[in-house]
Amino acid sequence: MSRAVDDLEADPAPLDAAPMTVLLNELRRSPLLWLLVFVPVVFVGQTLAPAAHTLLFVLSILAIVPLAALLSHATESVAARTGDTVGGLLNATLGNLTELVIALAALRAGQYMLVKASLAGAIVTNTLFMLGASFLVGGLRHHTQEFNRVSARLQASLLFLATIALVIPSAVAGADEGPAPAFVQTLSLGLSGLLIVAYGLGMLFSLKTHRELFAAAEHAGGEETPWPIGLALATLGSVTVLVALVSEVFVESVQQAAEAFGMSPAFVGFIVVALVGGAAEMASAFSGARKNRLDLSVGIALGSASQIALFVAPTLVLLSYAIGPTPMDLRFWPGAVVMMLIATLTASLVTNGGRSAWFVGVLVLMVYLIFAMTLYLLPPGGSR
Amino acid sequence: MSRAVDDLEADPAPLDAAPMTVLLNELRRSPLLWLLVFVPVVFVGQTLAPAAHTLLFVLSILAIVPLAALLSHATESVAARTGDTVGGLLNATLGNLTELVIALAALRAGQYMLVKASLAGAIVTNTLFMLGASFLVGGLRHHTQEFNRVSARLQASLLFLATIALVIPSAVAGADEGPAPAFVQTLSLGLSGLLIVAYGLGMLFSLKTHRELFAAAEHAGGEETPWPIGLALATLGSVTVLVALVSEVFVESVQQAAEAFGMSPAFVGFIVVALVGGAAEMASAFSGARKNRLDLSVGIALGSASQIALFVAPTLVLLSYAIGPTPMDLRFWPGAVVMMLIATLTASLVTNGGRSAWFVGVLVLMVYLIFAMTLYLLPPGGSR
Amino acid sequence: MSRAVDDLEADPAPLDAAPMTVLLNELRRSPLLWLLVFVPVVFVGQTLAPAAHTLLFVLSILAIVPLAALLSHATESVAARTGDTVGGLLNATLGNLTELVIALAALRAGQYMLVKASLAGAIVTNTLFMLGASFLVGGLRHHTQEFNRVSARLQASLLFLATIALVIPSAVAGADEGPAPAFVQTLSLGLSGLLIVAYGLGMLFSLKTHRELFAAAEHAGGEETPWPIGLALATLGSVTVLVALVSEVFVESVQQAAEAFGMSPAFVGFIVVALVGGAAEMASAFSGARKNRLDLSVGIALGSASQIALFVAPTLVLLSYAIGPTPMDLRFWPGAVVMMLIATLTASLVTNGGRSAWFVGVLVLMVYLIFAMTLYLLPPGGSR
Repeated sequence: MSRAVDDLEADPAPLDAAPMTVLLNELRRSPLLWLLVFVPVVFVGQTLAPAAHTLLFVLSILAIVPLAALLSHATESVAARTGDTVGGLLNATLGNLTELVIALAALRAGQYMLVKASLAGAIVTNTLFMLGASFLVGGLRHHTQEFNRVSARLQASLLFLATIALVIPSAVAGADEGPAPAFVQTLSLGLSGLLIVAYGLGMLFSLKTHRELFAAAEHAGGEETPWPIGLALATLGSVTVLVALVSEVFVESVQQAAEAFGMSPAFVGFIVVALVGGAAEMASAFSGARKNRLDLSVGIALGSASQIALFVAPTLVLLSYAIGPTPMDLRFWPGAVVMMLIATLTASLVTNGGRSAWFVGVLVLMVYLIFAMTLYLLPPGGSR
Repeated sequence: MSRAVDDLEADPAPLDAAPMTVLLNELRRSPLLWLLVFVPVVFVGQTLAPAAHTLLFVLSILAIVPLAALLSHATESVAARTGDTVGGLLNATLGNLTELVIALAALRAGQYMLVKASLAGAIVTNTLFMLGASFLVGGLRHHTQEFNRVSARLQASLLFLATIALVIPSAVAGADEGPAPAFVQTLSLGLSGLLIVAYGLGMLFSLKTHRELFAAAEHAGGEETPWPIGLALATLGSVTVLVALVSEVFVESVQQAAEAFGMSPAFVGFIVVALVGGAAEMASAFSGARKNRLDLSVGIALGSASQIALFVAPTLVLLSYAIGPTPMDLRFWPGAVVMMLIATLTASLVTNGGRSAWFVGVLVLMVYLIFAMTLYLLPPGGSR
Repeated sequence: MSRAVDDLEADPAPLDAAPMTVLLNELRRSPLLWLLVFVPVVFVGQTLAPAAHTLLFVLSILAIVPLAALLSHATESVAARTGDTVGGLLNATLGNLTELVIALAALRAGQYMLVKASLAGAIVTNTLFMLGASFLVGGLRHHTQEFNRVSARLQASLLFLATIALVIPSAVAGADEGPAPAFVQTLSLGLSGLLIVAYGLGMLFSLKTHRELFAAAEHAGGEETPWPIGLALATLGSVTVLVALVSEVFVESVQQAAEAFGMSPAFVGFIVVALVGGAAEMASAFSGARKNRLDLSVGIALGSASQIALFVAPTLVLLSYAIGPTPMDLRFWPGAVVMMLIATLTASLVTNGGRSAWFVGVLVLMVYLIFAMTLYLLPPGGSR
């Protein structure tokens, strides 16, 4: 579809390599991709044993992880080949494509609680788990690590404000006992509009007027050799379809599987979906931390969380009018609001000084563990 | 009343200018003052059509804005003519005179919900709208702006602590379901005493022992030529009376007008009164931001918000014993508490690094817009 | 028991001094120790007038204060004599021994509300009162004081995360109306395990891998001449027993005495127990502030508060299974959660800039006063 475009760019990448060779090299380099074998297994499983929910749940998770990694690499490759501005835009928009596709499957199934839990969980997981584990992984190799605190503070402020924007209606409207749905629905719609405008302005800011502030994260992202554009675009398209199909299986099986595992739906949405959807980004963040490039890790973690709040969440609200059984609002369960606020405050505090050591990572991870433990033990009725 | 005093000071200001000429110059310089024409219109309107609430509401707003600007300039002029310490004291005490006079009118009418909403709204509006718009206005002209982060942090800490002091009884007492009014009333009274003592000590701190930390804001404020002391004092007195009279009309008409506009009383108190009362300070803050003197803008915004919490709020509680129908307590609606805390936390976070760019302003304004949207859509019953 | 160990160390301390002489010197140096006379008085009082609760309450407080000071000095002396690592470990573990012993007495008596109030109160009192008074005491002598903001930030982050860990179950589980006790109990147990693991890792961090970050507080602590090890160990053992015995009296009398003084149980646990238990540490913190060594004061205040959250609280939960009438959980009264969060946020904000002046101390103390006033006025039913 676009070898021509590729050739025009005169890129030092291995243009002569056949797509298959590139994919095989990739498979050799990242053992994670061997999990791709579970993709066909999921579909076979669904056909042969559509009632084996627990099995299908596990298989679909195992299949989504490598697909997310492929999607992430494909997005970066397309971005690398399309020039800085378009590429940055693509990266920013498709960076959480896996989360978006999974949430869309849940949205179509009318499972709004799962959608909301996965939104809140993605923010909390990116902020606490990805950041904390990066600090820990990096701190085990390096005594103390420094990172650019000016851009970290800026990104933490953006994340804080984005999260506030997302949760304030819950905080304000939730304080009163159940306001009329009409009011909450209008508010959620207006808010989604505001968030998307802010997101657009944020891209103008980070890609155009003040791109130098975000330079570290960007350069570092382009480290691996990008794929040829044709392969990248084809992968992007086909893998998105695969993620969508596997997500259908995942969403269908999640309820019964969660019960079988003794997990509350809140736990599944908050922790499992968020970890599965973010696996690829986590790999990049941890690799950055090990190489003492904590700027990269902080940028990925905070940037991805901001994107969930400013782009994925309002997009889902707007799309719920088109594809959901009823419109979705933005009221979150009070516990999720508390967790999101604490997660973003924690991110602000720990990135504030521009220094990190392993124990900071331990404590941030501990907060995440406590959230997970609370959600795991929470009786099903308590999650909403 | 005091040309003599004036002459003694041998000030480089235009002493020979007749008061009228000064006022006319002022009118030419600030187009805002043309709105003064609405002051007599309000009184005529109230006499001819006392039931035209919506009209009177709009007219009184249009009349208060220029009066607030005059009041602000008169206060600064008296301050500039009375030496540093007395002047600083006056500036600090009368800086929110408009808000105080409007709140007094509402207090006398027993409209405690409006009083409290306007207190909370003034803190939130100063912190989010004034600060955010300053960052945006300044950022549109200057790529990034730096400000003294040591004094900004100090002021943000003071504001945070002042706000905490103001809201902790709501947070603690409100958590239980409706404690006995007697307890809340005693607490509010004791708290008001504490706040006023803290305010007095704060003036000792900022005007006497550590005035160098607040130097930037002070110098910058004295930029415009101060009026002769006689004119300034006369203006101060007469305009205060006018604001009081117009406020009466405003408070009387606000309830019905709000209904006519489909606005909840919470929205009127929180947003409309706060914007109207703070118009003059906003003009100074934005002008500072445009001139790349963000220290000035940050100082005005955070200082004014602190003053509301430490001085205006407790003064109103104490005065409610003298002029209100019943004593007023300091319990706020939970949503207002959340908004005040978020506003001051936001101020702490965004001023923490001592740097700003346009998008930071956009996000701070977005939080304000979301608050406004929430309050606008909130059904009337939900506001208390 | 250990003169031999002592001799081996060849310490420059007055080894030849008889223990009694050392104690007498100590008495001359710290007038606080004259209060030791109240220790026998308590026991006499309890035998003669077991029903004079108010008297016994006052006497036991007067007796605990000097015992806490002795305990603190004995711990430091043992620490100084046992080398850096073991000493640091001892100091870290026994630093809040008084609080722990008092809480154990309350635990055995099944007074869980008092235990929880004293835990929350110790965190709040250390963070607000000890820190605020240090800033004030130091600021009255020195115009502005600087402290190492890197380690202050790190310690404030640790405290924030430790407090979050402690309160998140209350925040999350409390939002729902009364979850099943079984769930809360399991969560509290799992959480206590996590907190103690984090505490152990924290000691590894501060005593082993990153001890240089905590250097200031450590050096400064060893300023006074340590006692001989034999005397120190004997004092440690016997004074712990005395504190335990006096605490029994205190816990037995507190309920009725509080009523007699018109104090709510929440006030007694939160304010009185915390001030009594922390008296010795406060003396060190204030002395550090006066000598312009604010690093020391900040280290003591924040370190002690972290220790309560990470070590004392979970230890009490675990011990409640062994010695309490029923297991204790970690759900706090919502007001206590708000106060703990605000206290740690305040600590983060005011230590963030690494500078202090007297008014910062005033405002931090004001927040503490407001908490105390609220708790004092709170009707008994409102405290849980």
